[in-house]
Amino acid sequence: MNTIDINCDLGESFGQYSIGNDPEILKYISSANIACGFHAGDPLVIQKTIVSALEYGVAIGAHPGFPDLQGFGRRNMKLSEDELFSCILYQVGALKAMTEALGGQLHHVKPHGAMYNMAACDYNMALCIAKAVQKIDPSLLFVGLAHSSLIDAAKSLGLKTANEAFADRRYMRDGTLVSRSNPRAVIHNERESIHQVLQLISDKQVVSFDHKTIDMHADTICIHGDNTEALQFAKALKENIEKKGYCIKALKK
Amino acid sequence: MNTIDINCDLGESFGQYSIGNDPEILKYISSANIACGFHAGDPLVIQKTIVSALEYGVAIGAHPGFPDLQGFGRRNMKLSEDELFSCILYQVGALKAMTEALGGQLHHVKPHGAMYNMAACDYNMALCIAKAVQKIDPSLLFVGLAHSSLIDAAKSLGLKTANEAFADRRYMRDGTLVSRSNPRAVIHNERESIHQVLQLISDKQVVSFDHKTIDMHADTICIHGDNTEALQFAKALKENIEKKGYCIKALKK
Amino acid sequence: MNTIDINCDLGESFGQYSIGNDPEILKYISSANIACGFHAGDPLVIQKTIVSALEYGVAIGAHPGFPDLQGFGRRNMKLSEDELFSCILYQVGALKAMTEALGGQLHHVKPHGAMYNMAACDYNMALCIAKAVQKIDPSLLFVGLAHSSLIDAAKSLGLKTANEAFADRRYMRDGTLVSRSNPRAVIHNERESIHQVLQLISDKQVVSFDHKTIDMHADTICIHGDNTEALQFAKALKENIEKKGYCIKALKK
Amino acid sequence: MNTIDINCDLGESFGQYSIGNDPEILKYISSANIACGFHAGDPLVIQKTIVSALEYGVAIGAHPGFPDLQGFGRRNMKLSEDELFSCILYQVGALKAMTEALGGQLHHVKPHGAMYNMAACDYNMALCIAKAVQKIDPSLLFVGLAHSSLIDAAKSLGLKTANEAFADRRYMRDGTLVSRSNPRAVIHNERESIHQVLQLISDKQVVSFDHKTIDMHADTICIHGDNTEALQFAKALKENIEKKGYCIKALKK
Repeated sequence: MNTIDINCDLGESFGQYSIGNDPEILKYISSANIACGFHAGDPLVIQKTIVSALEYGVAIGAHPGFPDLQGFGRRNMKLSEDELFSCILYQVGALKAMTEALGGQLHHVKPHGAMYNMAACDYNMALCIAKAVQKIDPSLLFVGLAHSSLIDAAKSLGLKTANEAFADRRYMRDGTLVSRSNPRAVIHNERESIHQVLQLISDKQVVSFDHKTIDMHADTICIHGDNTEALQFAKALKENIEKKGYCIKALKK
Repeated sequence: MNTIDINCDLGESFGQYSIGNDPEILKYISSANIACGFHAGDPLVIQKTIVSALEYGVAIGAHPGFPDLQGFGRRNMKLSEDELFSCILYQVGALKAMTEALGGQLHHVKPHGAMYNMAACDYNMALCIAKAVQKIDPSLLFVGLAHSSLIDAAKSLGLKTANEAFADRRYMRDGTLVSRSNPRAVIHNERESIHQVLQLISDKQVVSFDHKTIDMHADTICIHGDNTEALQFAKALKENIEKKGYCIKALKK
Repeated sequence: MNTIDINCDLGESFGQYSIGNDPEILKYISSANIACGFHAGDPLVIQKTIVSALEYGVAIGAHPGFPDLQGFGRRNMKLSEDELFSCILYQVGALKAMTEALGGQLHHVKPHGAMYNMAACDYNMALCIAKAVQKIDPSLLFVGLAHSSLIDAAKSLGLKTANEAFADRRYMRDGTLVSRSNPRAVIHNERESIHQVLQLISDKQVVSFDHKTIDMHADTICIHGDNTEALQFAKALKENIEKKGYCIKALKK
Repeated sequence: MNTIDINCDLGESFGQYSIGNDPEILKYISSANIACGFHAGDPLVIQKTIVSALEYGVAIGAHPGFPDLQGFGRRNMKLSEDELFSCILYQVGALKAMTEALGGQLHHVKPHGAMYNMAACDYNMALCIAKAVQKIDPSLLFVGLAHSSLIDAAKSLGLKTANEAFADRRYMRDGTLVSRSNPRAVIHNERESIHQVLQLISDKQVVSFDHKTIDMHADTICIHGDNTEALQFAKALKENIEKKGYCIKALKK
């Protein structure tokens, strides 16, 4: 039976501040990217999220970001290579050790927000991140924007990689994402979004925002869990994927 | 040959802010307690400190503290048990994974500052900390104030423990430390401080601030590295200890 | 016509993290206590909250708290007097200058969370806070728990004070609040809560959790804005207060 | 008598972390730029620095930076215009209110580090900063890199401006600073540095790193206070400036 991985960013709450509905969304996904306490998350949130993911049998990944809680890791920051390397080592290390302490095993790493976007088109930055991931554990799966520098850099080190596509983001003709500054960046229509995912899975293609069909090989599909319609969408997506004869399942490490 | 462990808090710098002379002090100690990024330290500082400790063959410990950089972890804070547990899990976990990634192995854990002092006389708090340490790795050595709740709680879980005494702090008749609010809390005279250590090592005794000789079994002696005379003192202490026929060496895990 | 002040803690969002429904709740209150960026709030949140409060003609107060975003300022912390004084000076100063820059005038100060609760029964701590407020502007109204050390200390300096009572908290016989650790601490029933407010306003009395009627002079009533029923309660309370012939209005500075 | 303003960044310590020798350097300068708690400084450090500056009669300025303590405000960050505006409003507001509470008056504003450098060549960013300064107090003096966008933007709003030159930085032919990534960026020789300042003052010229003499009108000269030779240099510079017949004095607001 054919399988596809559905991933979602979780553990983004902080202290009294709550984002997302983690225990509910876990029913519909196969991989969780858990914030590591720099752009979001705190130790107790991380612990609870790991425990929930283990309960649902969802693969646990570290989701490291810039040290910028106020900006939720979405603001570009210029770290030195040394700073970036140790910043990944620390965050992924904390997630790995906590996951093992709680009875699980860390499965993958996916950079967050501005760090993800910057490294997707900056090979040296991507290489620095990938080197730190490799140092923590060379068997970790490295998740990045499909066909981007993130994937190329991780591959060059011999890491196993996963090309990521987005359920609710529109694409340029060259396979990069339409910038969030563009009002058409995000797909708000549930059916359009489900259609995009099904096309990605069965045809390995996506239609760009300007209506050109392009090839795209996606190993994992990212859905969002931090808005009110997220749960309903996740449920509907799962039903549609299974109706097509696919099974939602985490990738092999 | 008889051995004694000398430990020191290291990795307390942060960004542009520098505290201590870590590479130099490492020559004179056998165990390093490395700040984990909450009360002091940042990822790059932690990484460099681990690398230095490995170079000098000094045993690496995690030194978790309260999330209070402004107060350097020295201000009492009331965390819930859940918060405290996960706060230890995260910090010790980060240190463990980073140490292993850099080719070493985490050896011990010693709580910092206000967390250490509060838990030394609060059994439930000490138990909560010890449980988190055990969850990360039950073979870790748990370092706490000699004969305090920290030691009792860790022992009750079956953890291996190390009673700590201080080179430059004065003691009450009951073996607790003279409070820092008392002007006589700290020994500023180098010879007096060396004498206290030698008596602890050879006689397993210490003289209280009011001149009573009391029994004290110390497995490890803490020296400070964050002031200008620290290096000279560390060197002189090492010479005196070796002259007495002891060898400075980390405890067995 | 008789008046009563209704106050609410606002501006508690942070970056992407949203708490409360500030623009809506402003319709039903006369005084806003705006978080100052230490336990909650960030510069942009503060700015937007001041602008909203000015729009609705609601009196603007500073709501300083401990430097503990992770704990939302609800965890006891032991600051030195010097630290506490400057911590208030900074937070209240920032609110005052921003309010003036945006065309308004700072009206009052009310400490937050653990700082409020600790100082309510610690006269020296209350005095330290009040001195800092006086230093920023001696005409500021000082809001504290009715009949507590907060009020006594501020009065001793000649500050104008406002005794605060709570719409949804239960009281001990001595006029202090039932601790949140007690499951009966909070009134969840809307009608019971409205009844408590009306009795406070018209009879200057409150019924303790163990059914004794005690005297309590409240100059201002605190309602909460950070839960889903908050808006509906605020609206119902306003209607009931006005039906009784009272007008909701900020206190004179 | 001719006058020149000498400014220095102060108040950069944080909690237990100490940088610079503020009380000593104040003897040799006329303007202090005080860190506002985002990239450096904390409330107690700010308070003490204001008190010291008042003692020495040194003009007090706010020195706002990016919210990045770990990076000391030296890492480029991409804030939205709204975030940047309120970030300045908050920091300059806090400094203004604290200075007034302590008996002084805020005199000037100079952005810090990466914020300064980015805005020096980004007119829109400079305009956003200048607008926030103007909102706090339109009489504040705006200090920026000589002849840069910082100055142009502030002037366009009608703010009084001060062109800043550096004692220990080398210049390009176009009057911009040699990047710190270039090993020749900083002048380490005391005599060369003093010569550069005297030439700036008396000839209104500076020699670029590649030996071309260019015109530069500097209203204020920045010296650094965070290294060990800083005090000696500040003293020597003052003597040399006075020998030339100039008096070190803050600019008129």
